[in-house]
Amino acid sequence: MKELEERIAAEGRVLPGEVLKVDSFLNHQLDPVMLEHIAREFHRLFADAGITKILTVEASGIAIATMTAYVFGVPAVFAKKNRSRNLDADVYSAVVHSYTYDRDYTIMLSKRYLKASDHVLIVDDFLANGRAVEGMIQLCEQARAEVSGVGICIEKGFQLGGRLLREKGIHLESLAIIASMEDGKITFRKTE
Amino acid sequence: MKELEERIAAEGRVLPGEVLKVDSFLNHQLDPVMLEHIAREFHRLFADAGITKILTVEASGIAIATMTAYVFGVPAVFAKKNRSRNLDADVYSAVVHSYTYDRDYTIMLSKRYLKASDHVLIVDDFLANGRAVEGMIQLCEQARAEVSGVGICIEKGFQLGGRLLREKGIHLESLAIIASMEDGKITFRKTE
Repeated sequence: MKELEERIAAEGRVLPGEVLKVDSFLNHQLDPVMLEHIAREFHRLFADAGITKILTVEASGIAIATMTAYVFGVPAVFAKKNRSRNLDADVYSAVVHSYTYDRDYTIMLSKRYLKASDHVLIVDDFLANGRAVEGMIQLCEQARAEVSGVGICIEKGFQLGGRLLREKGIHLESLAIIASMEDGKITFRKTE
Repeated sequence: MKELEERIAAEGRVLPGEVLKVDSFLNHQLDPVMLEHIAREFHRLFADAGITKILTVEASGIAIATMTAYVFGVPAVFAKKNRSRNLDADVYSAVVHSYTYDRDYTIMLSKRYLKASDHVLIVDDFLANGRAVEGMIQLCEQARAEVSGVGICIEKGFQLGGRLLREKGIHLESLAIIASMEDGKITFRKTE
């Protein structure tokens, strides 16, 4: 998605440890126009998948999921990262390793909001090692819901997550794939 | 806002400790149509306030802020609750007491995304004791930004937050104000 690549090139900041910050528009400050364009691109790519629900994980996926749900005309649901006193006891859950924080955390989703009849589009801001997406796939498996696709804004193509998901036969669409960001220079892999 | 009150009456669940769960449409599962209507109501109520930025706090405010930003045509920004390795060192911050979790936490916002020239609309899902909103007002004060309004989906009218904010002269609009929810029965205070 050319518009997203251009925005990353213009505003993305590369920090030590292969960290790419795009917090001017995607996951701290939020540009609703960019988010709408991202959502419309997901809709173009998954229009025929019969999507009934958008799934993401808090916090940085929520804005993307909200706008994607709006464009698809279906509900979104976000998995929560910490056991909250207000979360139903009756939850699906999966353990996810965060490389950013170097620790495991649990993601949880109320059983009320994911059903065997759902065709789920999982969305998130970043895909690196793919652990968060794997966790969300586990939630869908527990609900016997169908994972109809995974839509990612920015894939770190030099890390393993994308390959692992594609090898599993998951329909993964990443709107921008970063080939490398050595010495602070961001280069993209071609996408459709 | 009649539509919101009706939805709360139909789907809200009252739990012990004056907890109201509306996670079927507002803060776990997300109904994008309801969110759009909430955003349009905020726009009606704050249309003349010259809003340049929507401010909320993760996680449950993000969906509301995203759609509100979309309707207003301005960026949103969400304060983060935990020090993240990926957050700028250069942040505004405030300490907030959570009654839900009975602990203090720090909210943080990159100085890049809140400026003295901003006219800020603070939005959130709930207002109870008002501590989260007070924290966001502190962030705005640090930035010398103007708090042009506070838009709340559900105010617990029997708790102190709303009165404290109104007494301060803050332009607060709550789309649904709960007068009481004794014995699981939700009654609303009249709103405009």
